[in-house]
Amino acid sequence: MAAAAALAWALSRMTPPQPTPAEIAPERLESFAPLPTGPTQPLDPTAAAQIRLGRMLFQDPRLSGHHDVACTSCHPLDTWGVDRRKLSRGSEGREPPRNTLSIYNIAGYFAFLWDGRQDSLVEQAKEVLLSRNAMASTPEGIEAALRSSEGYARAFALAFPEQRDAVTFHNVAQALAAFEATLFTRSRWDAFLEGEKTALSGEEKAGFNAFVDTGCVSCHFGPDIGATMYQKAGLVKPWPNTKDRGRYEITRRGVDWMVFRVPSLRNVAQTGPYFHDGSVSSLEEAVRMMARHQLGKELRDREVYLIVRWLGSLTGEIPRADIELDEASRAIVTNATGRAAP
Amino acid sequence: MAAAAALAWALSRMTPPQPTPAEIAPERLESFAPLPTGPTQPLDPTAAAQIRLGRMLFQDPRLSGHHDVACTSCHPLDTWGVDRRKLSRGSEGREPPRNTLSIYNIAGYFAFLWDGRQDSLVEQAKEVLLSRNAMASTPEGIEAALRSSEGYARAFALAFPEQRDAVTFHNVAQALAAFEATLFTRSRWDAFLEGEKTALSGEEKAGFNAFVDTGCVSCHFGPDIGATMYQKAGLVKPWPNTKDRGRYEITRRGVDWMVFRVPSLRNVAQTGPYFHDGSVSSLEEAVRMMARHQLGKELRDREVYLIVRWLGSLTGEIPRADIELDEASRAIVTNATGRAAP
Repeated sequence: MAAAAALAWALSRMTPPQPTPAEIAPERLESFAPLPTGPTQPLDPTAAAQIRLGRMLFQDPRLSGHHDVACTSCHPLDTWGVDRRKLSRGSEGREPPRNTLSIYNIAGYFAFLWDGRQDSLVEQAKEVLLSRNAMASTPEGIEAALRSSEGYARAFALAFPEQRDAVTFHNVAQALAAFEATLFTRSRWDAFLEGEKTALSGEEKAGFNAFVDTGCVSCHFGPDIGATMYQKAGLVKPWPNTKDRGRYEITRRGVDWMVFRVPSLRNVAQTGPYFHDGSVSSLEEAVRMMARHQLGKELRDREVYLIVRWLGSLTGEIPRADIELDEASRAIVTNATGRAAP
Repeated sequence: MAAAAALAWALSRMTPPQPTPAEIAPERLESFAPLPTGPTQPLDPTAAAQIRLGRMLFQDPRLSGHHDVACTSCHPLDTWGVDRRKLSRGSEGREPPRNTLSIYNIAGYFAFLWDGRQDSLVEQAKEVLLSRNAMASTPEGIEAALRSSEGYARAFALAFPEQRDAVTFHNVAQALAAFEATLFTRSRWDAFLEGEKTALSGEEKAGFNAFVDTGCVSCHFGPDIGATMYQKAGLVKPWPNTKDRGRYEITRRGVDWMVFRVPSLRNVAQTGPYFHDGSVSSLEEAVRMMARHQLGKELRDREVYLIVRWLGSLTGEIPRADIELDEASRAIVTNATGRAAP
């Protein structure tokens, strides 16, 4: 009887296997938001013309110094805006120093590029156009290449109707930014946030809860599940590769050593390899490393599995209608380059 | 026998009471750093004169519009730079909208004030001098008040030797910034980080581990254990008071709604009440709320106790030699104001 009583006591003290919660408390969703659904009223003709022009320019290799790469080369629009290489190949095969980030869902970012050194889409576009390891062009080179095209002359005139000589480097960047700002990949996560409670599976909901409970949410929140702040890589356990010192390379302030912009997790299941150095190709491993290095936690296999399930729900639909060139646009890009648009 | 076997099995499955780890893994300390010990070589005379001038100005009520408050009124140097009110009292008893932050240990901050709207100590000083709810002064008012003092004329000439007319509003802010940048309260935590392993008690070490394991470290790290980034108040569980919307008040961007600068935890045991709204006076309650609202966790009493123990090790020594006015300085401040220096 004593043993039985002891058994009852012992059983009462046992930690039961934690049931996986299959629902998400509404307050846990307060720091998240769905992506926009697109314009609610017709765009004014100038805005529409800028977007159309940007859509052409984004796919036109003449924006690169050697007419060998377009924005789409590193940011293919049909694979969630990334080329899935560890490091991309810029003009003449040069390597930019960091892994390529997607250009989808970036309209709300607080800053751009891995170190956040640009805070406007227009300036970010200019930097990439001119950067030796990316498009390696010059303002004059771009303007000369585009001015030789009648189709572009008309497209720029429609996009910037108040300017006499609209084919300018600044307007190229402006049109690219206008186009990029329209690119959203809405996913089941957005439907869920908008109230469709069956848009996520039980495992995905459990994965979101594990994501919050692990502490991932302290950096990854907001409509982009990231892209709202800077964070140090290797916060609790030092980052393996400290060759690239992040924002410190710009500011030379101790507080910025190994600090990077927190990336968005939109489409993360499709946009590996991961991290600024592209050092990890498995999403499971990336999740494990984040928990270990940023939060000092060793995740169990089941936790990794669930978190990865939820991350899969962030894979959005490629907005075909927004990225495809109409026939006239295609002709302009093709004529200008003498080859088919990529 | 079956019951005994079951008991043995059940006992073997029981989660043992977690022993409190009393040591800290060295890699957990990588994201922290001790405060400076002060200049390693003698300051050049101009820098020393600027600091001495700033020390006077910091305690001089003539910097306020009605000569009724000094910087020390809200930032008393002998109580870790805070007045311990929910909201301070500025000139004519006006209330600034947010809880006063300490001016100790701020030299390495990435930005200043609760919303980070100033990124230089000089500009921060200017804002507070001019703000209606703080010192409510004007550049002309400050310059006029100081120019009537021979002692100040000499002190400004020594601090800005290359300028003909050195008593300027800009130089006032420059001297205040120079003084503030020298103010550090080194604590047992610094000795521990420098290798003195007995500087912390076992409970304090366990408290640090609980701090990391809970996830607090994702925002509070670096030499100031904070002050390196922005974060949303109410990340997992909404913040109770959303009247003050933080950085959103400046930027009007959705991504900045309820976002504040992460404060330093240096001297936190001495610098309540807590949060931008000064809404919580108990450090235990502040720790509990942070875990709940930022990380979605309900801490056990023991965890709160240990974290608060560790936070106590961040209470530093007031640097008496750095804050006390020498006799000549005291005379200048007293003569200028017609009353004893605070």
